[in-house]
Amino acid sequence: MKIAIVGLGLIGGSLAKAIKKNTQYMCYGLDIDKQAVRSALEQEAIDSEITADKLDICDIVIISLHPVQTIDFMLANKDNFKKGGIVIDTCGVKGAIVDAVEKPLADAGVEFLGCHPMAGREFSGFSYSVDNLFEKASFIITKTDSTKQQVLDTVTKFAYDCGFAKVVVSDTKEHDEIIAYTSQLAHIVSSSYVKSPSLMRQAGFSAGSFKDLTRVAKLNEDMWTPLFMMNKDALVSEIDHIIEHLQEYRDAIGSGDKESLHELLKKGRELKELSNKHLAELTKEN
Amino acid sequence: MKIAIVGLGLIGGSLAKAIKKNTQYMCYGLDIDKQAVRSALEQEAIDSEITADKLDICDIVIISLHPVQTIDFMLANKDNFKKGGIVIDTCGVKGAIVDAVEKPLADAGVEFLGCHPMAGREFSGFSYSVDNLFEKASFIITKTDSTKQQVLDTVTKFAYDCGFAKVVVSDTKEHDEIIAYTSQLAHIVSSSYVKSPSLMRQAGFSAGSFKDLTRVAKLNEDMWTPLFMMNKDALVSEIDHIIEHLQEYRDAIGSGDKESLHELLKKGRELKELSNKHLAELTKEN
Repeated sequence: MKIAIVGLGLIGGSLAKAIKKNTQYMCYGLDIDKQAVRSALEQEAIDSEITADKLDICDIVIISLHPVQTIDFMLANKDNFKKGGIVIDTCGVKGAIVDAVEKPLADAGVEFLGCHPMAGREFSGFSYSVDNLFEKASFIITKTDSTKQQVLDTVTKFAYDCGFAKVVVSDTKEHDEIIAYTSQLAHIVSSSYVKSPSLMRQAGFSAGSFKDLTRVAKLNEDMWTPLFMMNKDALVSEIDHIIEHLQEYRDAIGSGDKESLHELLKKGRELKELSNKHLAELTKEN
Repeated sequence: MKIAIVGLGLIGGSLAKAIKKNTQYMCYGLDIDKQAVRSALEQEAIDSEITADKLDICDIVIISLHPVQTIDFMLANKDNFKKGGIVIDTCGVKGAIVDAVEKPLADAGVEFLGCHPMAGREFSGFSYSVDNLFEKASFIITKTDSTKQQVLDTVTKFAYDCGFAKVVVSDTKEHDEIIAYTSQLAHIVSSSYVKSPSLMRQAGFSAGSFKDLTRVAKLNEDMWTPLFMMNKDALVSEIDHIIEHLQEYRDAIGSGDKESLHELLKKGRELKELSNKHLAELTKEN
């Protein structure tokens, strides 16, 4: 099978390295950044560079660009993909991407499937890519009413071949709602956390919890701005939830209400434990 | 030198193990939980059990109980400590503790110093204690106008002997303000984070950021409730700050204002990078 990766950044580069490490597939790369292509060739993450007009030799093309560029590239190149071939993306939102490209690609005879490899680092670019980024990660596939079973099977097998721990089949609505909570909200909270006037006083006074809460504040704003905007409703709802809950703690502390504070903290601990238990059970089942 | 540890929980137990691993000091233990004492003896974390009326054989007594019990124990036993000996605590707030015990202990001829070993785990009790908990940690000492230089020197040497990476001398006001941000707010945010209705849907849809943001939600509410209450003003101010900032992101996203959102995220990234750089410079200096 021949694979092409369009966009050799952190995710595209790591996918290329995972493919070459774990599979026998031919892997082609395309990037407007020629240094990324050279590095990918030098590090044997790709077998060869490819141009857009040659993409029709590939069975699976992975578009691993920022959200807007992902849509633009697919629409501009819809006639360059192999007829009956598969095109997937790797964006962190799915509704806006799938809505924009599924129909035009189908009309061009191409099978599109929205995908989301659930891993990342607080760094961008090929130079940070690693061959084991996805070892413990989920590969989420969002199927639609038009998705063919054979396409789903091929992409599922491909993800496991690359070394993903688990393939999760979802739909765009479910994906975007849950991702707003598990990933997007985390970035918003972390980015808000570092805005306290106390930030520059923390040296020597912080331990693991501060580090954990602020790690992803070091984000790529060019990528995250469109991701957040494309998932506005779900994300606003999650931000509203956490503000509402923070306000409860604030009021209990501000008014010296020990019993309420104790209850809020206890409930939080119990929820965290329940969620850990649920996760452990699901992991055992699989 | 003879050391006693009152309270063989996660912190007291880890201190005992660090003392026996890194120093030649005799280490005595006291706990109302007899199983903790037995385990500490079996694991050679303490040389011997000690009773409160024998504490005057020890040069340094470390009170490692929850905040209210810390104060109660010190006041009830002020005449049991060695005259001229040193008593320290390990609580996560310092103003309320120091205000309550410094004078009574001084009147009883005992040198009290408020301390805070900056490490923890999301588990409680001796069975989770480890001998390397403090290897990368700061040991914060809060001195007051009454603190004698010789006491400061002795406790500083003791902390380095135990294996702490760094001793930070502060005062109760500075400590409590910064800790409200670096540690207490992290626990409040994490505890609020898990209260979204999306919590139980996250399996398969989460990566490192969700794990990081929710790790410390698994907290001990019996310990944290008084810690938060004893640091009410600083903590309320930090919660207000983060709510205010979250609201800015929420408004930018809700109104579709890409430029403002991009600017908010960029500023957050820059602050995080600045804080990392500041930390790296301080580490280099020391």
